[in-house]
Amino acid sequence: MSPQVPATPFLAIDLPVLDANIERVAQWAHERQLALRPHVKTHKSPEIGHRQMEAGACGITVATIGEAEVFAQAGFDDVFIAYPLWLDGDRVARLRRLASAGTVRVGFDSVEAAQRLVGVGVEGIVEVDSGHHRSGVAPDAAGALAAAALEAGLPVAGVFTFPGHSYGPEVRLQAAADEASALAVAAAAMRAHGVEPTLISGGSSPSLAATGEGLTETRPGVYVFNDAQQWELGACSPDQIALTCHATVVSHAGGRLVLDAGSKVLGADKAPWASGSGRLLDHPQARIVLLSEHHAVADLGGEALPPLGSSVRVVPHHACNAVNLVDEFTVLSGGRLVGRWDVAARGMNA
Amino acid sequence: MSPQVPATPFLAIDLPVLDANIERVAQWAHERQLALRPHVKTHKSPEIGHRQMEAGACGITVATIGEAEVFAQAGFDDVFIAYPLWLDGDRVARLRRLASAGTVRVGFDSVEAAQRLVGVGVEGIVEVDSGHHRSGVAPDAAGALAAAALEAGLPVAGVFTFPGHSYGPEVRLQAAADEASALAVAAAAMRAHGVEPTLISGGSSPSLAATGEGLTETRPGVYVFNDAQQWELGACSPDQIALTCHATVVSHAGGRLVLDAGSKVLGADKAPWASGSGRLLDHPQARIVLLSEHHAVADLGGEALPPLGSSVRVVPHHACNAVNLVDEFTVLSGGRLVGRWDVAARGMNA
Repeated sequence: MSPQVPATPFLAIDLPVLDANIERVAQWAHERQLALRPHVKTHKSPEIGHRQMEAGACGITVATIGEAEVFAQAGFDDVFIAYPLWLDGDRVARLRRLASAGTVRVGFDSVEAAQRLVGVGVEGIVEVDSGHHRSGVAPDAAGALAAAALEAGLPVAGVFTFPGHSYGPEVRLQAAADEASALAVAAAAMRAHGVEPTLISGGSSPSLAATGEGLTETRPGVYVFNDAQQWELGACSPDQIALTCHATVVSHAGGRLVLDAGSKVLGADKAPWASGSGRLLDHPQARIVLLSEHHAVADLGGEALPPLGSSVRVVPHHACNAVNLVDEFTVLSGGRLVGRWDVAARGMNA
Repeated sequence: MSPQVPATPFLAIDLPVLDANIERVAQWAHERQLALRPHVKTHKSPEIGHRQMEAGACGITVATIGEAEVFAQAGFDDVFIAYPLWLDGDRVARLRRLASAGTVRVGFDSVEAAQRLVGVGVEGIVEVDSGHHRSGVAPDAAGALAAAALEAGLPVAGVFTFPGHSYGPEVRLQAAADEASALAVAAAAMRAHGVEPTLISGGSSPSLAATGEGLTETRPGVYVFNDAQQWELGACSPDQIALTCHATVVSHAGGRLVLDAGSKVLGADKAPWASGSGRLLDHPQARIVLLSEHHAVADLGGEALPPLGSSVRVVPHHACNAVNLVDEFTVLSGGRLVGRWDVAARGMNA
């Protein structure tokens, strides 16, 4: 290991893979005549956001006002906060400041939340539930909600959904179909209430390739990096994984591989259907079978163990939560260090 | 909500509860004549570490050199790095620097790792596996390993284990018994090889109350805060929970409570046996049934939903991973803001 790179564990970006991921999805969206508005909560990095914009993104998606502020500071002036914000305390002034410097749209799923967005300078976008059952109204309720928001004085730009139920085996096609159908029902309901949805927005990385008709915009996030979850769902191939955690073999206890990368750098996510808490990029049969805060125990499926002290590349289960644990990315190209990028919006939860 | 406190979501400490937790366990250890060496990876805060020392702790436990450095900077000079470090790169110089300023002990579970600790100025402590099956040698192998390390030139202070298999329903007593038995076997094996273990160290928060005979030291971590996991295991009562995430109700979608605290502030942990991804301190029947990065969806078991915009206190599933996501604690006493404490060792994974 070269002396310039940090001590393990650290998150590394494979730059050529990152650029290929950005370009491939941008090209796909262009061919589909879909506006691409990547969710930057995945990478939290203006450097990567700029690359997405240069590849043709129309703007960015964020989850919080804090993320929007970091990206606004870095020059991003077209931001969708795809979250049902509840404006209280200093959030009113913060959002107004953002809206005075660019185009800001905000999700809502209640009249009460919409009323609080009035006069702040933002446009509202109705959130509908397409099957993930998190936030959002039922698609056929979108018309009445949009009309009530307009009546209250909030400009309503359109409708969005997150088909998060795409995160499971063999459900990606169905989730994409649910997304298209929910958005179509919602758009029709809005038109029936006299509100024209100019923006019809969906997107999740697993369901992306199967995106149906009728959307004007898509908001994938994880595709820039991919992760063990996408790999296992078949939404990416291992050579499309741009983010790994470099870890050191610290023990062979019990005949297994013990690594110095735990949940405090990989994230503690593990979907119930996943075969492990992460994978090893260079050992496709391996699975992380036990993850604690500073240890990952990997089962290599009978393969000889890499020696103590050697370095391995761990693919986090969920890239977004891993990224939120570190202050910077180590950027590699062909294994050589080519940069360090700040995770500038790390921890911006509010 | 008072204007001084931050926007939700934020992690808050209930100071009187924190102090009571520190005092209760210190008192218990004193009565048991057990040295108490709290694991500070839970709170990563020198302020809290100082309170533990004032209550009688003999020193601190950390997981990484980076954590040790932060606490050394704050005046802590008796540190056990309870981790099988693999010394490479600048870790040699960093550890030597730490050892020159205080007492530093380091875990090891292989001769190869022990050899790398020779001459750095630290004492080694053999790690044994008492049933958690992570790192550590079998207890009866501790004697040969200790002798080999001594032979290589490493002073060996004793033996330690982490009975992490205490994290499960109805297994706390068994894990405590396994811990005592593994340490006794290891200590005997070391004596049989001519190495006197002056330090016999164990401890996990769930198994703490059942700690068996023969230990000289205990290293619990979570007890300062407690969390949903300890609550569910019966290792604490709700009035002993000192850490909560204050969250705002942003939606009532689907007739459930949607909060603005997701896995990026609560952590994504969920033990397979847990009834949810976290709980609500003031609604004991409630469970977080869906957790994504910025949303927690809670089922209140039929109770009326708190109104949109109201604030609720979420108990994270696992305090240690939640703490590692924020830069500071908001410290409250009787609901009033009394301080802000840095999570100074956040992200110190290396």
